Amino acid sequence: IAEDKLLGGLLADGFDGQSCLSRYQSILYRKALPYKPSPYLVSKLRKYEDLHKRCGPNTPSYNKAVEQLKSGSNVVGTTDCKYVVWVWYSGLGNRILTLASVFLYALLTERVLLVDRGNDMASLFCEPFPERSWFLPMNFPIAKMFNSFDQKSAESYGNLLKNNMIKASMGSLPSYVYLHLAHDYDDHDKLFFCDDDQALLKRFTWLVVKTDNYFVPSLFLMPSFEDELKKLFPNKETIFHHLGRYLFHPSNHVWGIVTRYYKAYLARADERIGIQVRIFDKGPGPYQYVKDQISACTIGEKLLPEVDTRRLAVNPSKNPKVKAVLMTSLVYGYYENMKNIYWEHPTVTGDIIGVHQPSHEEQQRSEKPLHNMKALAEMYLLSLTDVLVTSAWSTFGYVAQGLGGLKPWILYKSENQTTPNPPCQRAMSMEPCFHAPPFYDCKAKEGIDTGKVVPHVRHCEDISWGLKVVDRYTE
Amino acid sequence: IAEDKLLGGLLADGFDGQSCLSRYQSILYRKALPYKPSPYLVSKLRKYEDLHKRCGPNTPSYNKAVEQLKSGSNVVGTTDCKYVVWVWYSGLGNRILTLASVFLYALLTERVLLVDRGNDMASLFCEPFPERSWFLPMNFPIAKMFNSFDQKSAESYGNLLKNNMIKASMGSLPSYVYLHLAHDYDDHDKLFFCDDDQALLKRFTWLVVKTDNYFVPSLFLMPSFEDELKKLFPNKETIFHHLGRYLFHPSNHVWGIVTRYYKAYLARADERIGIQVRIFDKGPGPYQYVKDQISACTIGEKLLPEVDTRRLAVNPSKNPKVKAVLMTSLVYGYYENMKNIYWEHPTVTGDIIGVHQPSHEEQQRSEKPLHNMKALAEMYLLSLTDVLVTSAWSTFGYVAQGLGGLKPWILYKSENQTTPNPPCQRAMSMEPCFHAPPFYDCKAKEGIDTGKVVPHVRHCEDISWGLKVVDRYTE
Ligand SMILES: Nc1nc2c(ncn2[C@@H]2O[C@H](COP(=O)(O)OP(=O)(O)O)[C@@H](O)[C@H]2O)c(=O)[nH]1
Ligand SMILES: Nc1nc2c(ncn2[C@@H]2O[C@H](COP(=O)(O)OP(=O)(O)O)[C@@H](O)[C@H]2O)c(=O)[nH]1
Repeated sequence: IAEDKLLGGLLADGFDGQSCLSRYQSILYRKALPYKPSPYLVSKLRKYEDLHKRCGPNTPSYNKAVEQLKSGSNVVGTTDCKYVVWVWYSGLGNRILTLASVFLYALLTERVLLVDRGNDMASLFCEPFPERSWFLPMNFPIAKMFNSFDQKSAESYGNLLKNNMIKASMGSLPSYVYLHLAHDYDDHDKLFFCDDDQALLKRFTWLVVKTDNYFVPSLFLMPSFEDELKKLFPNKETIFHHLGRYLFHPSNHVWGIVTRYYKAYLARADERIGIQVRIFDKGPGPYQYVKDQISACTIGEKLLPEVDTRRLAVNPSKNPKVKAVLMTSLVYGYYENMKNIYWEHPTVTGDIIGVHQPSHEEQQRSEKPLHNMKALAEMYLLSLTDVLVTSAWSTFGYVAQGLGGLKPWILYKSENQTTPNPPCQRAMSMEPCFHAPPFYDCKAKEGIDTGKVVPHVRHCEDISWGLKVVDRYTE
Repeated sequence: IAEDKLLGGLLADGFDGQSCLSRYQSILYRKALPYKPSPYLVSKLRKYEDLHKRCGPNTPSYNKAVEQLKSGSNVVGTTDCKYVVWVWYSGLGNRILTLASVFLYALLTERVLLVDRGNDMASLFCEPFPERSWFLPMNFPIAKMFNSFDQKSAESYGNLLKNNMIKASMGSLPSYVYLHLAHDYDDHDKLFFCDDDQALLKRFTWLVVKTDNYFVPSLFLMPSFEDELKKLFPNKETIFHHLGRYLFHPSNHVWGIVTRYYKAYLARADERIGIQVRIFDKGPGPYQYVKDQISACTIGEKLLPEVDTRRLAVNPSKNPKVKAVLMTSLVYGYYENMKNIYWEHPTVTGDIIGVHQPSHEEQQRSEKPLHNMKALAEMYLLSLTDVLVTSAWSTFGYVAQGLGGLKPWILYKSENQTTPNPPCQRAMSMEPCFHAPPFYDCKAKEGIDTGKVVPHVRHCEDISWGLKVVDRYTE
């Protein structure tokens, strides 16, 4: 149990349990997972923790690096620690994925990760690293500029290149670079994913990243990271699974929301089925074609039993199970529809289906603190289910599948407000999809289908141009 | 178990189990109840069943009585069975109570009860009597007139008296009397509750009753029924409890709705708390003062634990229980409010509170068949809880408390849209309240407070002018 509590060595021991109950309690809510972190990953994490302790906020090294940042120029050799700052940006699911991506980048480049807490990071998550905070101190010199950073910023790597402000040959460099890796990044910004550019970026003490993409798949296409990634993740589809469970421990407030819901509605069922309904169509819904799609998928894939609309009688079967469906959605109608179907009719198997929806916030309202706490709690609750159905395109679902170590059935995005046929597909891997990858061959300096370069980086099930990492997969 | 299945002899044995699963399965969903029917009641019911078999629809006796009815006059001695016809009228909760009242009247007067099936009676309930149906045949001569019967009908007992159409001295009487016992009945109609009038009514083969009142308490004030009632119900507060469980067996369709909900949401909790929210204020609600009232009652009476709004931490208590709240209401807001309170905050006891609402139909829509099936299922589900909170004035709640053998906490009706203080009161007895009783002393022929005549008929907790039967109660 001691090793279990640390998730196979993934977590460091010795944290105070009370201040972050989720850290060592999560094991109580999950079945034993088959995926163990590699010893190499474990030792890499312990080394990172040492680095973070030495270089983290308010250490002498940090203070020195901040002085250099304030000075405005990047004199190589005056600092002993290098940093990558993650800027608070986009929806919560997106942020969880980007923070994991930036952390992996930090591991690969031996940088210290510092987190811009934004509105809510400190209320949502516990500290993941021992002793030193992962949060950027409030008085960080350029913190006020984060909000204004965008594709047009002169400080961005793409624009610095475009305007010939930096070159490998230069002796003096700016004191930081802004990495614009958001969906609207351009071809210059995308050079971040080329080894030569990484060599240049290595010279900067401070990198500041704004992204809404899980860019890990493209790191797998870079020769400079290849060996290290292979050693860290012998099972290639467990990257977010391990890093997510390492980094994201819900705060006590959120953990209360998770565990109370779990105990009140899910714990005593014989089986738990998560259904994440996230519809990107215009208008609030609910839509009939989505209701039909959910039924077609769950019944067609035998995740839920069919109802018996003819007999309308109680079906006394041998050993019926009680199954709890956890449905998450911004709206109420999908839940109500399924709940009523299984209330009004018996199932052909005699199994009893209870349907539960924690919240229906109607709109994405990321500024309300409780709203995001519930959103995080719901991703986490989905990750505690035995069988998961997610919606195409949604990072909310990716987080759930990754934390839970689940290969979900993905509900296809509908075209023209009709039910797709087939309605869903089983995921190839539990890794998230990179929605806006570069299609560029850094060596040949020309366009390329980056989903066809190596067998373990493929196009996603839900977004044809997206990329995701798979372990073994044969079509 | 055999005797248990028959609820202590209340039910006749030998029914086919499959055609009415609820009849012998209800015992599986209720704790053993402390209230046993008296041997006298049991034998009275068996005798009634024999009478019903002999006189019920389409028997020679019935056919003879129908011929007499068609003939238009009531020649005493030509028929061997007498009937009381219950007319379909008012909301479902009301109907259940009035049907039980009329059945008790039939028992006391040795009449055969026949039921006007209306829109839905046949789809809601199983047949309660062996072999012969309780439903009035479709071709019953005056069935088409039922709908038009009202306070002004010339055929009503009150109007017949007022117009001197009947008197004890008359040899020939009309072939039937309409008994108007609805809320708007007048002083002449109310003479039904006088022994002299009962003597006159005895001479009629056919009585037809329309009522929305549980008029049993006033039967207890009639000397002619006193002895018999004492023998039937030595425990005076179990009248509806026994008669309701004897008469009302949900149909297989409704039973499926009851049992699936119970198994999916309630069965596995450590304790079940029913809260019936029925607000008679204008406008749909939800109202804050009602939300406050529900909390004030459930927490003040220690039916539910208080939440801990200060610490916001998970409270690891020794042996926390999972309690399921079953809330029924036409609207959604009260449920959502309570569900969120117990989701967002821990309780001071560490107990986990799940909140469940089967439907929220928004409006009373008695014409939809599924609507009434759900309404019946919800009354029944409330009756399966361990602790019950009901709303003042509501027959829906009375049915639940009676079937369940529960003394509920009654939420007072609010005045001026404010939370009453105290918010609720424990009921004196599980009997329903008679909302519109007569205040008349038949002997003295003058007004009287009928709530002060005998110790076991008192004014109700929720309606000061109402009457209810209590067993033992000291103020
Ligand atoms: N509570 C809750 N919030 C949701 C749900 N779906 C979407 N949201 C909200 O909408 C935001 C969506 O952004 P994000 O998490 O990045 O996911 P994505 O847009 O699906 O990729 C979430 O962070 C929530 O604030 C849901 O099922 N439950
Ligand atoms: N399903 C459901 N229906 C309700 C509820 N409250 C009221 N109704 C509907 O409104 C009707 C109210 O009439 P009745 O049963 O006579 O109860 P009363 O008006 O409360 O005395 C019910 O029969 C239902 O059709 C509820 O909580 N659930």
